[in-house]
Amino acid sequence: MGFKETMTVDQVLNEVIKYIRHVPRIIEMAITEALNKYLAEDVTARFDVPGFNRSAVDGYAVRSVDTFGASPTNPITLRVIGFMAVGDDPSKYVLNPGEAVEISTGAPLPINADAVVMYEDSRRSGNLVEVLRPAPPMGNVSRRGEDVRANETMLRRGMKLLPWDLGVLASMGIYKVRVFSPRIAIISTGNELIEVVDAPINGPPPGKVINSSRFVIDGLLRSLGCEPMYLGIVGDDEDGIARIVGNALGDHDAVITTGGVSVGKVDYTIKAVMRLNPEYISHGLSIRPGKPNSIAVVNGKPVFMLSGFPVAAATGFDVLVRPVLLHMMNATDDPKPTVRGILTRRVSTPVNTRSFVRVMAYMGKDGKVYVEPLALTGSGVLSTLVRGNGILVIPENREGFDEGDEVEVILNRPLFIEKPQ
Amino acid sequence: MGFKETMTVDQVLNEVIKYIRHVPRIIEMAITEALNKYLAEDVTARFDVPGFNRSAVDGYAVRSVDTFGASPTNPITLRVIGFMAVGDDPSKYVLNPGEAVEISTGAPLPINADAVVMYEDSRRSGNLVEVLRPAPPMGNVSRRGEDVRANETMLRRGMKLLPWDLGVLASMGIYKVRVFSPRIAIISTGNELIEVVDAPINGPPPGKVINSSRFVIDGLLRSLGCEPMYLGIVGDDEDGIARIVGNALGDHDAVITTGGVSVGKVDYTIKAVMRLNPEYISHGLSIRPGKPNSIAVVNGKPVFMLSGFPVAAATGFDVLVRPVLLHMMNATDDPKPTVRGILTRRVSTPVNTRSFVRVMAYMGKDGKVYVEPLALTGSGVLSTLVRGNGILVIPENREGFDEGDEVEVILNRPLFIEKPQ
Repeated sequence: MGFKETMTVDQVLNEVIKYIRHVPRIIEMAITEALNKYLAEDVTARFDVPGFNRSAVDGYAVRSVDTFGASPTNPITLRVIGFMAVGDDPSKYVLNPGEAVEISTGAPLPINADAVVMYEDSRRSGNLVEVLRPAPPMGNVSRRGEDVRANETMLRRGMKLLPWDLGVLASMGIYKVRVFSPRIAIISTGNELIEVVDAPINGPPPGKVINSSRFVIDGLLRSLGCEPMYLGIVGDDEDGIARIVGNALGDHDAVITTGGVSVGKVDYTIKAVMRLNPEYISHGLSIRPGKPNSIAVVNGKPVFMLSGFPVAAATGFDVLVRPVLLHMMNATDDPKPTVRGILTRRVSTPVNTRSFVRVMAYMGKDGKVYVEPLALTGSGVLSTLVRGNGILVIPENREGFDEGDEVEVILNRPLFIEKPQ
Repeated sequence: MGFKETMTVDQVLNEVIKYIRHVPRIIEMAITEALNKYLAEDVTARFDVPGFNRSAVDGYAVRSVDTFGASPTNPITLRVIGFMAVGDDPSKYVLNPGEAVEISTGAPLPINADAVVMYEDSRRSGNLVEVLRPAPPMGNVSRRGEDVRANETMLRRGMKLLPWDLGVLASMGIYKVRVFSPRIAIISTGNELIEVVDAPINGPPPGKVINSSRFVIDGLLRSLGCEPMYLGIVGDDEDGIARIVGNALGDHDAVITTGGVSVGKVDYTIKAVMRLNPEYISHGLSIRPGKPNSIAVVNGKPVFMLSGFPVAAATGFDVLVRPVLLHMMNATDDPKPTVRGILTRRVSTPVNTRSFVRVMAYMGKDGKVYVEPLALTGSGVLSTLVRGNGILVIPENREGFDEGDEVEVILNRPLFIEKPQ
């Protein structure tokens, strides 16, 4: 019984990536829709942003040469010929020697002006202004192209589009972009499963379990900028699974199954995918929970075969699905929020296994952060991910941590402000 | 010229929260749509999850009393009366004394069984099995209600719905939830602005700037589970702004404007909102960039008046909009990814001002993390948020950091693996 020999996450990832040749679907979409999607093209500026020199302060636009030698005791007087507001055309005024234009922050410099004197460095009287300090060329001026230069490649393929990226794209005159939008099939296997909409109000019939993993995977895929397509529940039936996975591979960029990946009598999914002549397949992984998580490559596309237990499936998503899909989109993973804290209880884990321990991280009355491990077992117990707020990852080369050890925890919710009940 | 006296972020937030009485829109939606939304209700379980005792291992379901005293040298023999698969009904078999049922991980215990003997602790021959070790009551059994207990409140109002929360909701038989979905109006002001779709291919006309802030704010709002409604550009016109903001307040949960918040000639928005008889208004904030960011409360709803400069507006969003909207949804902010690194250059900032310095954090050849400050000024230069990957926040009580200081930086993109050009 049990897996003969499982590979580490890194071993599997290094191998599987060699076999993946498929480029996921690319869609052109409006920039507002592209938030958190991964860019599928480099984006180069067609023009300078801003397209003109503009004032960085409120004051007077001048010819810098006219102000040389100015000082509070020896001011230079210029004639104010008008007011330049934000949005005005630069050609509204042409400065001749000895002239100035009053100007707002952000307004374009009038023709022949090359500097701005702040109000603080001037004294106005009627249509004259006394300049109290020399203005160097380009002094108090935001230069044309300061934000983005024409022909500059501002965003690159594989970048995740964050809110300010959308702003930069717009400022470059771009309102549609090509982004990766992988279509990922989700197939749930297992005779025990029923759909939430089919469950009676007082709970599923004896022996049956509501299919919850599909929603976890759906959410994790959306968070990665992918488009999940849920294809339903298949029973524990090798033929049926082979047929639906094979069909799904035709019009999806990847397939994710849950269930049927244990050893012994219940490896329907593994056997079904074997029939599809995979270029690569690995059964089992040196992680806990989630040892049965497996991956195959069929026609250059990944088939992720995740555990039927929801927590194990979520862990499998994190270590297998996420890095492979990011790789396919030329992207790297986001940084994760972490916190360091003191472990309240010893945690022992098997050696040569990467363990993911669900924890509650909280601020103690003494102002220190404590990390309380939740159930070590129970790969079906999804609620620990809701009750807890973080994950302690124990690497392959450790057998756990002792009570009192300082550990770093990945936080997926805010720190609790006191020890939860 | 300049602001007379600005308040700190904390002063403004403490005040403004006293005046906000409005509860934002609540919508019932399918759980897949509710990802990353904030829950507007407590969710209590109607039934135990799982609804039955199930095997945690592959082996034999037994009556624990039948196995007492078993050992490898003195095994106890039981008669195997069948096989219990995942998804079977528990009433498929009734165990009489001396009987066992072969069972898969996850399958329900048959009637009268209260423990499971692992394959490893048994020896099978024909329809008999020798038990080599006693099985304690509930040994290797995942108990009914182990994941969620009936009547337990699993999720609370104000929680952000993460992928595994959707799974837990489904496992509880819930496929629709009530979430906050605030409708937030975005109004851009400024004579210089044109829409990206209206800009000529070679860039906006002289003096004009594409409205980029609306996209930044749109993205930031979506990331907070809100529904942005963009109402367009208004010129620098007090009447026009007062009219559109007043109307927007009628059917939105909050209003965000950009522009018209400086001092002197260009405070159209401040003056317009003053006309709406706000219960509270604060003009200016002790932050940099973003000093002109302002907030008012009108009829219990917030009106956020952000700077016309995109970076200043993004900073204003972070310190004003985000905490106030989270407060309205009973929520707290997510933890942020951070990294510690060595500052490559001195950064001086004004005292009594919270400064937000855009930085590039990178891994040096020596394996240490370095933090390189980008432009300290240029609140219009949105591209620094794209070129950089983090923000160094300098609190009010510091005047900066020295070269070589170790600083903590909020990361919004991955660490660069080498110093970018």
